[in-house]
Amino acid sequence: MDKQYVIGVDMGGTNSAFGIVNARGEILHRGEIKTNIYKTAEEYVKALSDGINTMIKSSGLEGHIKGIGMGVPDGNMYKGTIEHAANIPWANKSIIPLAKMVSESTGLFCCLTNDANAAAIGEMAYGSARGMKDFIVITLGTGVGSGIVCNGKLVCGHDGFAGELGHVIIRRYNGRPCGCGRNGCLETYTSATGVARTAREFLETRSDDSLLRAIDDRPVTSKDVSEAAEKGDKIAKEIFEYTGKILGEAFADFITFSSPEAIILFGGLTKAGDLIMKPIEKSMKENLLTMYKDKTKLIFSELPDADAAILGASALVWEK
Amino acid sequence: MDKQYVIGVDMGGTNSAFGIVNARGEILHRGEIKTNIYKTAEEYVKALSDGINTMIKSSGLEGHIKGIGMGVPDGNMYKGTIEHAANIPWANKSIIPLAKMVSESTGLFCCLTNDANAAAIGEMAYGSARGMKDFIVITLGTGVGSGIVCNGKLVCGHDGFAGELGHVIIRRYNGRPCGCGRNGCLETYTSATGVARTAREFLETRSDDSLLRAIDDRPVTSKDVSEAAEKGDKIAKEIFEYTGKILGEAFADFITFSSPEAIILFGGLTKAGDLIMKPIEKSMKENLLTMYKDKTKLIFSELPDADAAILGASALVWEK
Repeated sequence: MDKQYVIGVDMGGTNSAFGIVNARGEILHRGEIKTNIYKTAEEYVKALSDGINTMIKSSGLEGHIKGIGMGVPDGNMYKGTIEHAANIPWANKSIIPLAKMVSESTGLFCCLTNDANAAAIGEMAYGSARGMKDFIVITLGTGVGSGIVCNGKLVCGHDGFAGELGHVIIRRYNGRPCGCGRNGCLETYTSATGVARTAREFLETRSDDSLLRAIDDRPVTSKDVSEAAEKGDKIAKEIFEYTGKILGEAFADFITFSSPEAIILFGGLTKAGDLIMKPIEKSMKENLLTMYKDKTKLIFSELPDADAAILGASALVWEK
Repeated sequence: MDKQYVIGVDMGGTNSAFGIVNARGEILHRGEIKTNIYKTAEEYVKALSDGINTMIKSSGLEGHIKGIGMGVPDGNMYKGTIEHAANIPWANKSIIPLAKMVSESTGLFCCLTNDANAAAIGEMAYGSARGMKDFIVITLGTGVGSGIVCNGKLVCGHDGFAGELGHVIIRRYNGRPCGCGRNGCLETYTSATGVARTAREFLETRSDDSLLRAIDDRPVTSKDVSEAAEKGDKIAKEIFEYTGKILGEAFADFITFSSPEAIILFGGLTKAGDLIMKPIEKSMKENLLTMYKDKTKLIFSELPDADAAILGASALVWEK
């Protein structure tokens, strides 16, 4: 038996989930540790390695693991580092050679990239982008991330940090303030947080009735908007139309750059289905340069939501 | 002696210039034919092949030519076609397999791409981008074109038409009408034509004195603006500041996409030197996401202006 299994690690701010994955993209064995309870990178790496080694031993697949791929916030693929990751206490003030540390500690090859790039590689290996050489994955979660593939290769740029399409300026005047310190970034409108912000704006500036007005004990979330829209709520549907319009405008510009075969949508907001997809399609049509019209597919990720991050990270190893 | 020479063809709307180029990027022999006096593609290809064959014979380099690269308006590299080229009578209504026709007619390998992509390949082979794997060439001429290289490869997209950065929407509201039928495209502000348009706007809406007001027998051109600015004319300098500001905003978004090592500026407008460069640099600094600041070089093309298009086209052959 050859080395036909890979390990994927989905490192989030709270938990790090990992699994052994086969070439068909099935997770055969799993494990999990906390991410943020450690004081130093050394302690985290020790705990992760212990967890991974235990999983490998109990799987009986020792000697058949090709390597470990990690999806890491603020991960740099070229250098294998995690750099100034705001939400991780042991990594928020420095540049840590995480891939090297994990590799030394486990004795296995290890590589890493950021979450959105891992998602793109995962789509190419096991998901909607199988067989594609040019596509963009857009992750619509708490923020907006992107993984770009051109000529069959992940676009990482000269420094490893390409593909921050959530921070393209989509509203240059009177744009919403963004966590990055600038205004008008795509993610201030089209992340889950952005949708909640739009809901607040719409409810404040309009007087028509809405199911969303019944929520008065806490802020309205994008999930609330989704549920209300499914029940036919007018304001909720218009919130998705507004969000889709802006995404379509941005996608039309992205296509001008890399003319991808597909833009693949991933993350929480995609649960809204046609409520978000139809407005994006309409807006893309209105905004695309004629030569690009009706060429780029707009599709949802096919990766199972809960496992996508582990799968994507694991697929990095096949890539290498 | 090995096949160490390539032929570059710079096909413009009026003339098609060509030359034999060595590996150091020197043009050793030259020729030229008209582009637009032919009624059919067959006639054009016959004339071009005759011209190329004559040049090869007189050079004494028969048998040492590796192939022909062509820079062609609306050229599709994947298919070797010229598609609906508006300004070329024999090619404006159809898709013509030009590379195949030239290859059959000359007996030499032939490939083609559009002008801006040829410029990018030329910079990588002989110019400012030697040794770079990630960069963007922006051509500032009558229009604004772009050639994008990621991971050492030209980004052509799934259909061969990626890299139309002149048509990114940089002013989404009240944007200038563009020839493409939309509004607010980058090239409506930052091409030579765009600069002339800005001059007209500034002169109409302002009352302060300017050398440009002395030009009353014809429309002000970008060259006039450049000359006036060099003489210290206030409005002319502000026109470049305005142009540079918009380019800097656009470049900040491009960097978010592919994080290039350099953005290389090419074409007529670059003759303005610091008058255009300084405002772009200032605007990039103001608009870049912190993680990208002071990383991407902004440089002028090093290719000799008159020969750049032939060199770029010829470099395509080394690429293949």
